[in-house]
Amino acid sequence: MANSPVAHLTRRYEFSASHRLHSNAMPEEENQRIYGKCNNPYGHGHNYHLEVTVAGPIDPTTGMVMNIVDLDAIVRTEVLVHFDHTNLNLDLACFRDTVPTSENLLLEIAGRLRHTIPGLVKLKLQETGKNFFEYRIPMSDNK
Amino acid sequence: MANSPVAHLTRRYEFSASHRLHSNAMPEEENQRIYGKCNNPYGHGHNYHLEVTVAGPIDPTTGMVMNIVDLDAIVRTEVLVHFDHTNLNLDLACFRDTVPTSENLLLEIAGRLRHTIPGLVKLKLQETGKNFFEYRIPMSDNK
Amino acid sequence: MANSPVAHLTRRYEFSASHRLHSNAMPEEENQRIYGKCNNPYGHGHNYHLEVTVAGPIDPTTGMVMNIVDLDAIVRTEVLVHFDHTNLNLDLACFRDTVPTSENLLLEIAGRLRHTIPGLVKLKLQETGKNFFEYRIPMSDNK
Amino acid sequence: MANSPVAHLTRRYEFSASHRLHSNAMPEEENQRIYGKCNNPYGHGHNYHLEVTVAGPIDPTTGMVMNIVDLDAIVRTEVLVHFDHTNLNLDLACFRDTVPTSENLLLEIAGRLRHTIPGLVKLKLQETGKNFFEYRIPMSDNK
Amino acid sequence: MANSPVAHLTRRYEFSASHRLHSNAMPEEENQRIYGKCNNPYGHGHNYHLEVTVAGPIDPTTGMVMNIVDLDAIVRTEVLVHFDHTNLNLDLACFRDTVPTSENLLLEIAGRLRHTIPGLVKLKLQETGKNFFEYRIPMSDNK
Amino acid sequence: MANSPVAHLTRRYEFSASHRLHSNAMPEEENQRIYGKCNNPYGHGHNYHLEVTVAGPIDPTTGMVMNIVDLDAIVRTEVLVHFDHTNLNLDLACFRDTVPTSENLLLEIAGRLRHTIPGLVKLKLQETGKNFFEYRIPMSDNK
Repeated sequence: MANSPVAHLTRRYEFSASHRLHSNAMPEEENQRIYGKCNNPYGHGHNYHLEVTVAGPIDPTTGMVMNIVDLDAIVRTEVLVHFDHTNLNLDLACFRDTVPTSENLLLEIAGRLRHTIPGLVKLKLQETGKNFFEYRIPMSDNK
Repeated sequence: MANSPVAHLTRRYEFSASHRLHSNAMPEEENQRIYGKCNNPYGHGHNYHLEVTVAGPIDPTTGMVMNIVDLDAIVRTEVLVHFDHTNLNLDLACFRDTVPTSENLLLEIAGRLRHTIPGLVKLKLQETGKNFFEYRIPMSDNK
Repeated sequence: MANSPVAHLTRRYEFSASHRLHSNAMPEEENQRIYGKCNNPYGHGHNYHLEVTVAGPIDPTTGMVMNIVDLDAIVRTEVLVHFDHTNLNLDLACFRDTVPTSENLLLEIAGRLRHTIPGLVKLKLQETGKNFFEYRIPMSDNK
Repeated sequence: MANSPVAHLTRRYEFSASHRLHSNAMPEEENQRIYGKCNNPYGHGHNYHLEVTVAGPIDPTTGMVMNIVDLDAIVRTEVLVHFDHTNLNLDLACFRDTVPTSENLLLEIAGRLRHTIPGLVKLKLQETGKNFFEYRIPMSDNK
Repeated sequence: MANSPVAHLTRRYEFSASHRLHSNAMPEEENQRIYGKCNNPYGHGHNYHLEVTVAGPIDPTTGMVMNIVDLDAIVRTEVLVHFDHTNLNLDLACFRDTVPTSENLLLEIAGRLRHTIPGLVKLKLQETGKNFFEYRIPMSDNK
Repeated sequence: MANSPVAHLTRRYEFSASHRLHSNAMPEEENQRIYGKCNNPYGHGHNYHLEVTVAGPIDPTTGMVMNIVDLDAIVRTEVLVHFDHTNLNLDLACFRDTVPTSENLLLEIAGRLRHTIPGLVKLKLQETGKNFFEYRIPMSDNK
């Protein structure tokens, strides 16, 4: 498939979670100044939209970059069952000492998917309808 | 304006909140059976989309059913500042003994808006992109 | 078709127009107080989304309430060619003495469609992603 | 629950299907004239969006009109497994002699859901982003 | 215009088509295993959303990268009239021996547009609301 | 933060404005031929959707690329207060001799933001639901 044309496949997922933005490395007032209402002690929540993008040659026999059934299974096992309907700060060990901002969520998700999804090139996370975040997987990780 | 034609004005708002579905009136297993993953002890969250619908005669001078600036101010004061970026169960007294399902959120919001917004006829609350809930204000309340 | 079940068909259209909210019946300061930035002398604009809803028995032979091709032709001829890519205040005689609020746009559009579209029951006009307006055609007009 | 306030719950589903609009009751030219490109012999297809609306009193204990898990199970069993990823004309016996217009799809879906979903009041079917169809369940069916 | 700043223009199109995923190069069971319900013998369908992206210097006189009217005409003539309201497998010769996956649809569309649209850099095809595919035109083709 | 992973943050804004496409550098007939209905003397309007993308290392303490509160303040001060609810041709000096196409709007917005937003890499402007334009900030500007 060395000469097959390359295409990008992007799949959309959704999970609902709550979080509180608070860094133990900063004093209380600094947390309030930086995170504002996102620092509310009891937290708040979002419907997160996650987009996973895979690049690769189009298999000449199947006409596919990757079987979506396989992609769904990996994302569900590695990410969705752990993130959906949770309190990110309290239910996930990885956010005990890391502030669950969208940027850090992306890094955590990348860590869970980059070795299990060959060809993973980009992750996009939408927190609300007004903003979204992207993380491009560094090339060296992508073998 | 007795004979002015009647129109409906709908305005969309958004708030991000977390909640946990759990009824103290039911045993633990019943809560798990009924609410499933929404019963997760630490809660989860959503971007709620609220639509407020007002009906009334079109003012012949202004050409408006209601000034959106006024509507925004009421919804912000009565609902958004209390609901946005909160944990509904822990931050709002009204959900201490009432399960914060979308249906009960609608009843609570209706109670806060029905006497302050003349002509309020309908509230719609979207919890995720896959479901939404509506509550029509009973006529007798609407004077 | 007297006993055929009734269904509602809704079709979405779009037009881009500019307008200025200003009523000659009110003094300058009143116009500014009521319309705010919508009173800007040179106007501003929107992508309007219009939804036209028709109700009627499902024709047992064609399986349709109304042929969408016919509906499109009427809406185009009566509304879109006159409203799209115009300045509502300056290009349309009907808004010379009537403030082009969404409510008044609905009344004008209803006047143009109610006698040409049998079964027209509702019009919906979205001005921005944050608000929309509806006008239900009075029953007596609908014959 | 006689005095509990009533709310409406709407759930969105999606299925992908192909169809051909062609009525055996009409001559070939009539079919082409009425259905146009939808009469293409080999058919075409859509991503259909189905909205199912249920009305009922809010259960004071659970705070719900109906458990979405139950609703999903019924719609999946009665509709989605039969309609999704099919050719409506060739895979479904019900459309062998009935033209699979959106209006007739709604009647067929209503027949499958009205006796299994208590409180079913409305079905909405979106065929493309430019049109949708609604069918309100007659009151007498809804007991 | 050698020194004019470069911008990207993207235009959205839509077509409704049916298809069946089935490769003659694989045995029946392999087809079922790989394509699942998309292998249904009679096919199924989608509302495809196509995005065509053109890059180029902004013409200092017109202020445009390319006139959208011209772009629309090319896409309509080369793609839409052939793809819209068709059965991709049976109506298009190009998919007689090529499986009409979204990836292969992109390659086919690229072949039809790359020599007629100067500056074509990317094509994006959305099959359902949950996935989309992209193909970047190789530089060497783009002169 | 030299070794911190880099992420992209994109924020969506909206403004409503009117414009007329007309170039003084071209004769009347040329303007009509090129701009068509967009050349209508009194103008028309749009709800513009602007997306501002910032790239940068994720701050290890705050977990953020940039504080959205700061980004909002800059975009509001530099762009939105000047563009929202205006007639671009008549209210903005910068479009007195420059045709306010989306491409030129992007260049103007880039000029206002590139020196005030560190890490600005891309601007996207959607004029209608059917098209959008992008401008990538040249690297040399981005320090």
